[in-house]
Amino acid sequence: MNSADLPGLDDEVLQSEAWFRSNLRSLVELPTVSPGMSDDREIVAGCHAAREILASVGATAELVGTRGTPTVIGRLRHPDARMRVVVYNHIDVQPADTATWDGGQPFHFAVDPHPERTFLYRGRGATDDKGPALCAVRGAKLAIDRGAKIDVTFVWESEEEVGSPHFTDVLTARHDDLMADAVIVSDTIWPTAEQPAVSTGLRGALHATMRLRTAGKEAHSGLVGGVARNPIKELCQLATAIDASDFWHAGVTAPDEDEIAGFLAAGFDPDYFMHAHDLHHVTTRDPLEMMLRIWTRPTFELHGLGGGYTGRGTKTIVPDAAELKCSFRLVPDQDPMAIGEALLAFVRAANPEVEVTLGGSFRPYRAATTGAVHRAIVDALHATTGRCPVTVREGGSIGAVPMIARELGIPVHFLPLSLPDHGYHAPNEYFDWRQARIGIGSFARVFTTLAR
Amino acid sequence: MNSADLPGLDDEVLQSEAWFRSNLRSLVELPTVSPGMSDDREIVAGCHAAREILASVGATAELVGTRGTPTVIGRLRHPDARMRVVVYNHIDVQPADTATWDGGQPFHFAVDPHPERTFLYRGRGATDDKGPALCAVRGAKLAIDRGAKIDVTFVWESEEEVGSPHFTDVLTARHDDLMADAVIVSDTIWPTAEQPAVSTGLRGALHATMRLRTAGKEAHSGLVGGVARNPIKELCQLATAIDASDFWHAGVTAPDEDEIAGFLAAGFDPDYFMHAHDLHHVTTRDPLEMMLRIWTRPTFELHGLGGGYTGRGTKTIVPDAAELKCSFRLVPDQDPMAIGEALLAFVRAANPEVEVTLGGSFRPYRAATTGAVHRAIVDALHATTGRCPVTVREGGSIGAVPMIARELGIPVHFLPLSLPDHGYHAPNEYFDWRQARIGIGSFARVFTTLAR
Repeated sequence: MNSADLPGLDDEVLQSEAWFRSNLRSLVELPTVSPGMSDDREIVAGCHAAREILASVGATAELVGTRGTPTVIGRLRHPDARMRVVVYNHIDVQPADTATWDGGQPFHFAVDPHPERTFLYRGRGATDDKGPALCAVRGAKLAIDRGAKIDVTFVWESEEEVGSPHFTDVLTARHDDLMADAVIVSDTIWPTAEQPAVSTGLRGALHATMRLRTAGKEAHSGLVGGVARNPIKELCQLATAIDASDFWHAGVTAPDEDEIAGFLAAGFDPDYFMHAHDLHHVTTRDPLEMMLRIWTRPTFELHGLGGGYTGRGTKTIVPDAAELKCSFRLVPDQDPMAIGEALLAFVRAANPEVEVTLGGSFRPYRAATTGAVHRAIVDALHATTGRCPVTVREGGSIGAVPMIARELGIPVHFLPLSLPDHGYHAPNEYFDWRQARIGIGSFARVFTTLAR
Repeated sequence: MNSADLPGLDDEVLQSEAWFRSNLRSLVELPTVSPGMSDDREIVAGCHAAREILASVGATAELVGTRGTPTVIGRLRHPDARMRVVVYNHIDVQPADTATWDGGQPFHFAVDPHPERTFLYRGRGATDDKGPALCAVRGAKLAIDRGAKIDVTFVWESEEEVGSPHFTDVLTARHDDLMADAVIVSDTIWPTAEQPAVSTGLRGALHATMRLRTAGKEAHSGLVGGVARNPIKELCQLATAIDASDFWHAGVTAPDEDEIAGFLAAGFDPDYFMHAHDLHHVTTRDPLEMMLRIWTRPTFELHGLGGGYTGRGTKTIVPDAAELKCSFRLVPDQDPMAIGEALLAFVRAANPEVEVTLGGSFRPYRAATTGAVHRAIVDALHATTGRCPVTVREGGSIGAVPMIARELGIPVHFLPLSLPDHGYHAPNEYFDWRQARIGIGSFARVFTTLAR
């Protein structure tokens, strides 16, 4: 690790482990499952705890109310700040099915030693996005304490996992406070555990629920089968037809040669990718084709089909109703609203009895790949890891990012810290001290560079 | 109601209500959900209770063990019996989801007054098949007490709803005891509440479960979507392809003109059918076409698709595994084994990673429409209801019926007692005293006629 640029910084980062662990424990053990999916009071309790962490490092911090759950805003400043940076993270987490977690306690924080990464920090939200949020706080604190003349505003949203439905409330209410020279988001990942990266694009998304009720109660498939309409079968047919349709491919801008050259340099490893996500079967094993499919092409994904009988044995019924949860991932320059309209029209024509509810949507996003902030991030990751970061895209979506870019007119840059094996949205999620150390050091370097 | 044929019988039937109600209560309140779907000890307890009911009317009764759960066999005989009849019923019932039942207690027996039917007897199993089983017992008792020289053997199976997987054990072990001049089964239904009928055919069935595991754990649809295979989507595609395929239509013998003429005389009422089964949407409203589809054509039905996320809100995952429960209804002269082989071959070609488990299968069945037993049933229903029964088919399946016909070489006849509105396999199932009275009177008449 190169520490010539900021003497003593690496030691200070190393001495941050107790602080990091203690605060990550506090955040992970608050089950801040996204609004509408659990008890929203847990989210509010999590926001208060997050505010206290920000206050404990000397930030002025407060909860900003929205029509949904609050956003925590904290501001840590040098008295002679020359530069203002906003760092966005989120403190809500995906639901966790205890049955699929080893030990069955997703919100119990556990620390395990690890040969290469020193410690693994286990628990829902550890990598998405509580651990990276704390890296930015610690990095800013170290930079300012070392004299960096910078003003860092932390924006911790609590509705990211459900599409940031009220985040524009925050951007409107605190527009002036949030005007900054740069916005940095870390909530993205490296292509492999050894290859730092800078993300240059996000996929967007559009969620939808399709419901079909064909009867008032389930019926005996012998007595009515052939005449009764089967809602599960019809939703299967509808999903198959949507999958084969091209309306959701409209508006895709394919990556150019330079971007593809960047992908080819990323060291993307199909075996590591499959192992990290525990995938037994994939649609392709060609590395470039894999990258193109996860980063640059839209998808239509089915998350669950409810209704009917899924218990032990067999129940020979025609179900009365079924519900399909699905979503599209969308890529630059697709428009989620236009895809949503096209979906409604498609379903109306294919099966008019199906009710479609459009859920959260996220615009795809293209990040700047030039300029001082981009350069500072690349240099910081290089200096901290000793490796030159590659340029990739991100297959996931962050609803707030295109909102910030549109509403505040400030380009958003990415400083990825998570790894594929960390398990975003998956059981047994974790973060690790090696990535946290890289995060704290990189943020400290970025803030120091920008303050110059 | 015509009572000239057997003076005083109708009064004796009317005086049977307390006996019928009390014994139906005992049987319904034992939650004899089919083996493998609940606690099999409840089935065994139900068999003992059923044996006691048979013993209480003077039958010699015992439990016959199988590799699965027992069958109860009871024999009620006139000392000078000239004729032996076997009556088959089953005492296992479909599972009942308390959330879908009014009052939430499927195994609580309730009696409600009703203007046309005197009493409704509510509870899981009331019409399928505990109520009709008791009608045969009471009818036999009345006939023998009035001097009918007949030997009636009651065979009450406990695995009918799961395809009678061990019923051949009973037929083999008790072959000689079960050899009879006729076998009668009542577990079928009238086309409308006012139209008595004799069934002349059963659909067969083939159950299957299809499982697909594509990963060791669920994954974030942003990170892996496009490369990870989605097991729910692939099972939807597979089900759609099977539905559009013709392999499961092989071997169908279409009804002839006489049979269709019989259907047209059945008074089938689309509005009553839809109301009885609470169907909001159907595939056709043409009466003949409806009868052809439910009685004479095969179906491919999806019962439930498990896996993925079906809770509150959205969880943007690619599921790791999914399971589809489905079944085919098959018609004369389709062969379930051949359809099963064709299904395995189809899936192997379409999606080799999908594991198919074939479940219970039931052969379709054609009943005799001539002969003394058929004539006795038609006359008994006519005398008891005052209406001439029509000839229809049955869309459901009774695995034991073709087994009896094959193993014992005795044709099986039907004496239907249930109504579409009773709710076979549905929430809020009931039976009623009008149909019970018709059942007791008709069985008494059939036994009396056959004994002459």
